Amino acid sequence: MVVVLKPNTPVEKRNTLIAELESMGVKVQVSEGTETTVLGLIGDTSHINQDRILSNEIVANVLRVQEPFKKANRMFKPESTVVEVNGRKIGEGYFCVITGPCSVESEEQILTIAEEVKKNGATFLRGGAYKPRTSPYSFQGLGLEGLEYLKHAREKTGLPIVSEIMSPDMVEKFVEDVDIIQVGARNMQNFVLLKELGKTRKPILLKRGLAATIEEWLMSAEYILNEGNPNVILCERGIRTFETYTRNTLDLSAVVAVKKLSHLPVIVDPSHGTGKAWMVEAMSKAAAVAGADGLIIEVHNNPKKALCDGQQSITPNEFSRLMEKLRKLLEIEGKKLEG
Amino acid sequence: MVVVLKPNTPVEKRNTLIAELESMGVKVQVSEGTETTVLGLIGDTSHINQDRILSNEIVANVLRVQEPFKKANRMFKPESTVVEVNGRKIGEGYFCVITGPCSVESEEQILTIAEEVKKNGATFLRGGAYKPRTSPYSFQGLGLEGLEYLKHAREKTGLPIVSEIMSPDMVEKFVEDVDIIQVGARNMQNFVLLKELGKTRKPILLKRGLAATIEEWLMSAEYILNEGNPNVILCERGIRTFETYTRNTLDLSAVVAVKKLSHLPVIVDPSHGTGKAWMVEAMSKAAAVAGADGLIIEVHNNPKKALCDGQQSITPNEFSRLMEKLRKLLEIEGKKLEG
Amino acid sequence: MVVVLKPNTPVEKRNTLIAELESMGVKVQVSEGTETTVLGLIGDTSHINQDRILSNEIVANVLRVQEPFKKANRMFKPESTVVEVNGRKIGEGYFCVITGPCSVESEEQILTIAEEVKKNGATFLRGGAYKPRTSPYSFQGLGLEGLEYLKHAREKTGLPIVSEIMSPDMVEKFVEDVDIIQVGARNMQNFVLLKELGKTRKPILLKRGLAATIEEWLMSAEYILNEGNPNVILCERGIRTFETYTRNTLDLSAVVAVKKLSHLPVIVDPSHGTGKAWMVEAMSKAAAVAGADGLIIEVHNNPKKALCDGQQSITPNEFSRLMEKLRKLLEIEGKKLEG
Amino acid sequence: MVVVLKPNTPVEKRNTLIAELESMGVKVQVSEGTETTVLGLIGDTSHINQDRILSNEIVANVLRVQEPFKKANRMFKPESTVVEVNGRKIGEGYFCVITGPCSVESEEQILTIAEEVKKNGATFLRGGAYKPRTSPYSFQGLGLEGLEYLKHAREKTGLPIVSEIMSPDMVEKFVEDVDIIQVGARNMQNFVLLKELGKTRKPILLKRGLAATIEEWLMSAEYILNEGNPNVILCERGIRTFETYTRNTLDLSAVVAVKKLSHLPVIVDPSHGTGKAWMVEAMSKAAAVAGADGLIIEVHNNPKKALCDGQQSITPNEFSRLMEKLRKLLEIEGKKLEG
Repeated sequence: MVVVLKPNTPVEKRNTLIAELESMGVKVQVSEGTETTVLGLIGDTSHINQDRILSNEIVANVLRVQEPFKKANRMFKPESTVVEVNGRKIGEGYFCVITGPCSVESEEQILTIAEEVKKNGATFLRGGAYKPRTSPYSFQGLGLEGLEYLKHAREKTGLPIVSEIMSPDMVEKFVEDVDIIQVGARNMQNFVLLKELGKTRKPILLKRGLAATIEEWLMSAEYILNEGNPNVILCERGIRTFETYTRNTLDLSAVVAVKKLSHLPVIVDPSHGTGKAWMVEAMSKAAAVAGADGLIIEVHNNPKKALCDGQQSITPNEFSRLMEKLRKLLEIEGKKLEG
Repeated sequence: MVVVLKPNTPVEKRNTLIAELESMGVKVQVSEGTETTVLGLIGDTSHINQDRILSNEIVANVLRVQEPFKKANRMFKPESTVVEVNGRKIGEGYFCVITGPCSVESEEQILTIAEEVKKNGATFLRGGAYKPRTSPYSFQGLGLEGLEYLKHAREKTGLPIVSEIMSPDMVEKFVEDVDIIQVGARNMQNFVLLKELGKTRKPILLKRGLAATIEEWLMSAEYILNEGNPNVILCERGIRTFETYTRNTLDLSAVVAVKKLSHLPVIVDPSHGTGKAWMVEAMSKAAAVAGADGLIIEVHNNPKKALCDGQQSITPNEFSRLMEKLRKLLEIEGKKLEG
Repeated sequence: MVVVLKPNTPVEKRNTLIAELESMGVKVQVSEGTETTVLGLIGDTSHINQDRILSNEIVANVLRVQEPFKKANRMFKPESTVVEVNGRKIGEGYFCVITGPCSVESEEQILTIAEEVKKNGATFLRGGAYKPRTSPYSFQGLGLEGLEYLKHAREKTGLPIVSEIMSPDMVEKFVEDVDIIQVGARNMQNFVLLKELGKTRKPILLKRGLAATIEEWLMSAEYILNEGNPNVILCERGIRTFETYTRNTLDLSAVVAVKKLSHLPVIVDPSHGTGKAWMVEAMSKAAAVAGADGLIIEVHNNPKKALCDGQQSITPNEFSRLMEKLRKLLEIEGKKLEG
Repeated sequence: MVVVLKPNTPVEKRNTLIAELESMGVKVQVSEGTETTVLGLIGDTSHINQDRILSNEIVANVLRVQEPFKKANRMFKPESTVVEVNGRKIGEGYFCVITGPCSVESEEQILTIAEEVKKNGATFLRGGAYKPRTSPYSFQGLGLEGLEYLKHAREKTGLPIVSEIMSPDMVEKFVEDVDIIQVGARNMQNFVLLKELGKTRKPILLKRGLAATIEEWLMSAEYILNEGNPNVILCERGIRTFETYTRNTLDLSAVVAVKKLSHLPVIVDPSHGTGKAWMVEAMSKAAAVAGADGLIIEVHNNPKKALCDGQQSITPNEFSRLMEKLRKLLEIEGKKLEG
C-alpha cells in the first residue's frame, strides 16, 4: 500500500501518521519527492482500512499495490481449479455447455427441451424455478414445482441440473435438489446468501453483477471461498453500458482477465450478454476461443411462447448447429467438451 | 404498446400475429407505412409479455407507450405521498435530514454522535448494524449489538432510527426495533426481501441500485407497494459511471424525474453519491433546491478512526455549518425542516 | 414514426397537431387506447424533426420505428460492400490484418517493423504520423516526416499503408500519401472532417467513438457515404464503461450487430480495445470467429521503448504466433486472409 | 510516480530498470515489501512515459501520484481565474447567464429572443451558426449568415455573443466576430482546434466531452493554456451513462471537483445536461448553489418550431421565472449576477 501525502505537510503531522501506521504492524518507508512525499507500507496490509487513512487531512491518496482477494488469487494458487459435478469437469481444458429454458414452465416443456439438448451434447440442464423479475407483474417462476420437474428431467436424461437461488433460506433445499446452484447477477453482492453458500460444498455458479468490476466479482467469489467452499464457477453475462442495442455488453476481455488473475473456471452467458437469439452463435464461438471454460445458453422449444426471455432463446435446431461449429473450434483449442 | 413489423411481411403471418394478440384481450389497429407496418395495441397491455412478441420472426421492435409501474405512478395517484414516522413527516414540503455514522462502532460512539446531530437539528438518526462490504475481510458491523446501541441512542435523544436490513429473515426484528428500514443499493433488486417488506407497514427507505435505471428503481418500489405497504421513501445515492474521481456520480436529475413520474418522496445521499466529505455540503444544498424531500448524510465524530467510509463522513462541526446554510435555502424553497 | 399523446388531451389540440403533421407530407392514423392515444405517421418521415414534435405540450413521447441511416443500411443495400485497396479486398469473406506501431518513431523503426510484419503475413502497414494525445506534453508524432518514412516502408515491402488524419486541411496530403485514411475514435463526430473525406474516393477506416452508440457510429459513416464516398470500413475499438481493468471494453457484439444492420465491412482493434498486450491474441481470435472482416493490431519491435502505447503492443514474435493460430480459425470460418 | 514490481523479480532485471529510470533524471527509492517491491520515483516525472514503463515485463503497475495537468492546476495557481469579456466577469463570485436558441434560424428569430433575454437579465447571448448534428440529414446551421444575424443582435441589445466553432480554419473568423468561442463536447479532444485557439487570447468556453473524465477535460484545457491563452471557461453539460430517461446525466459533483482541482471558472448547461425543458429550472438552481460560476441555457420563443433541441428549450416566460428564483439563491450564496 502506498500513501501519497499532500504537498507541504508539516513534519509533526507526518510523523504522527507514520506512528499510527506502524502501530498497525507495517513498516513505513518515506520517499520525499520534490513536490510530493510518498509513504510505502511494507508488510501485510490486508487488514488495513484504506478509507480510514484516506480521511486523514494530510493524505492526498492511498494506492493499493496488491489485489484485495487472496483465496481467489492465482498468485497464491497458481494451478487452475477444476470443479467436478457428478463426474463432469469444468476448467483447465474441460469445457461445459449448460443449456435449457430461462424458466421451467411445465413438466412437458422441460422434459422435451432436456431430451433435445441432451441429444445435441449439452453437459448440464438449466432451468429457472425461481425467477428474479424487474416487474412484480411478470411471471415469477413455478417455485418448488419447477424444481420437481427439473429433477424428473435429470432422471430421464442423466443431465445434472443447474438452477438459480434467490434467498438464504432456500440453501438447504437447493443443496439437496440441484447439482450446481446459480447466483444471479442481481445477487452477486447478496453477502448473506454468499456466506451461506460458502458453508456448503456445492458447486456455485456466480454470475457477474451488471455493474460489477472484475475485482468486485472476485471479491464476491472470495466470500464463498473464505467460508470453505472451493467450488466456485464464475460466469460473465454482460455488463450495463450506455449501448442499448444489445441488452447488455458482453465483456469477453473479462474472461481473459479472470483467467490471469484467478485460478477459478469462468464460463460465458451469450444469451443474457446480448439479449438477442441471433447473436448467440457468434458470441458463443468468440467466448470459446477467448478462453472460456464453458457456456450457458438459453434454449427453448418454442421461443415465441416462452414465459420469459423468448427473444434471446435459440431453438433446439439452432443449438444443434451451434454445437457442430463449437466442436471444431474446441478441437483447435485443445479443449474437451464434457457431456 | 406498439408492434413494428419487419418490411415485406407476408399478410398471412401478419394476420396470425394479430389473431394471437387479440386473443390476449386487446384490440389491434394496423397502420401501413410505405416501408414499415405498425400495429397499435389498444386496451390493457400490462399483462402482455413484450419479450414473447419480440421473439416473433416478423416483429422488428416492440415499443411500450406507458410506464410499467402502476402503484408508484403519479398518473394514477396525482397527490404526493407523505410518509409519517413517529410524528415526523417526509414529502410534499416536509424535509428530513437523516444522519449518523456509516456503522455503529460502540455504544459511546453512537450516543455521542446522536447527541451532536440532535443538537444541530437532525430529523432521524442513522447507523449501520449490519454492513454489506465488498470484502469479506472488512468490518461487517456489530449486528444485534449495534441495533441495541441504536435503540439506546433513540431513548436518550428522542430521534427515530434508521438502519439497513440485509436479508428477509431479519424483517421481523427490524420491524420491531427500527423506525425506518433501509434497503441498500445492492439489495434494490433482492425481490424476496422487497416482498417481505411489502407485507409490513413500516416505512422503507429504498436506495437506488448503482446501475439501476429510474424505471427499474420505481419497479422495485412497486414490489413493496404491490404487497400493500404504501410507506416507501426513495433515495438517490449516485450511480456507477466511467468517472472515477467521485465514488459514484450523484444523479440529481433523477430526483426531478422521480417527482414527476411518481408520488413517492425522494431523498438524496451526498455521502455515498460523492464519496468525499468535502463535497457533501455543496451537493446537499444542490439536492435541497433541486426538489429533494430530504437528505441522508454520514456524520462521524472522528472520521479518521471510522471503521467504514471515513473519507466521506463529515464532522459534527461541519454538519452544524451545513444545517445553517440548508435552513436558508429551505426557507426560500418554502420547505419545512422536520425535527 | 409513432407519436404518443399525453392522457386526456383535448380533441382540438390533438387535431391541431395532426394538421401540422399532415402539412409535413405524412398521413396520420389515430389509435385511441383506454389510457393513451397513439398517432402513427405513414410515409417518408426522414425529414421530420423528432425534437420539434417532442416539444409539443400534448406529446408524451415520439418513437422512431426505422433506423435513421439510409446509405449505410443493409435494408436498402442487402449485398455486403467489399472495399478494395491496391488489389487487396476487405469484407464478405476477405479478411485483412492491419499492423504496425502506434506511432512512427524513426525510419529505421518503421522499416524494421514493416519487414517483420510483412514476413508474417500482414495485409497492411499502420503507423501514426500525427498522434492525438490526451496530454499536450506527450509525444505528438513526427508529422510529415512520419508520412515520408511510412512511404519508404511501403516501397520496400509492398504493404499499402494506413495512417490517422486529425484535421480537414490535411485531407489532400493524406489522399496522396496513404492508402487507407484512419479517422480516430476522438474524431468520429468531427463532421467537417467526415464531409471532406466523403468528397474523396479514398478508403476510410472509421473508428467507433469511445462513447458512441452503434447507431451514432453508422450515422457518422452516413456522413461520408452521403458525400459520395462508398469506401468506408468500420472499426470497433472498445467503448468506455465503468470497468477500469481494461483500457476500454471491447464490444464484439457490436461487430455482429453491424454485420446485420449495415453492408459495410467492420474490423476490430484488440490493442486499444483492451490496452494490454497479453490480451491481444485471445481477443483477436474471438473477433475473427465473431464475424469481423479484419484486425488492426499494434506491433512494436521494442515495446519497452515505444513512444506511445507500449503496454498494448505485441512483439513481432508474438504477432507471428498469433497469425499461425488465426490462420486455422479463418480456415474453419471459410475466410480468406488477404496479403 | 510509483512503480510496482511483479513478485519474485530477479535482482538484475530490477537493477536494469532502476538504471533506465535514473537515466531519465529521477532518483529511485526502493521499498521491498514481503510480497511486492515498490519503486518511488523522486523528481520531475512529467516527461516520463507511463506506458513505456508499464510495458516492462517485470512491472505490475505504474501509479501516478500527481495530476498530469500543470497550468490548469490550482496547486500551482491558487487564486481563481476571472475571465473578462467586454467588461463582464466570470468566476470568483461573478456569475454569468449565457442564453439563447440552440441554433440561429433567422434574423427575426435571434433578434426577438435576444431582446427577451436581455430584458430578463441575461449576461451573454448564445446561438449556433454551425451545428454539429448526429445526422447528415438534420439542419446544419445557417453558417456565416447566422454569424451576421448574431452580430446584429449584439448591436441591438449590447449583449456579447457566444457561438460554437467546428474546425481550425474558422478560428480567425470567430476571433473577429464573436466574444466567446464555444468548443462543443464532440470537439473536446480535437487537439488541432484546441492548439489553434490557444494561440489567440479569446475567451474559450470548453464543454466537457460526453465520456470525458474530469482529468481529460482539464488536460484539454491544458492544451489551450499551454499555447498561451489563459481565458478558458469550462462547461459541464452532462455525461453519457446507462440512464436514458435524461439525454445525459448532469454531473454537478464535477463542478465541485473542478473548483478544487483547478483555478478556472466552470459553468453548467442544464439544457443539454437533461434534454428536458421542464428540468432546466431545478437543475439551474442546483448548479448555482453547488458552486458553478454561471449557466448556459437554451431559450426559444417558439420551442415547438425550433429547428433543433426544441424539447430542451425553455420559453422567455419560463426564463423570466427562472431568473427571479436564481437571483434569490445567488444573493444567499454571495454571488454577483453579471449583466
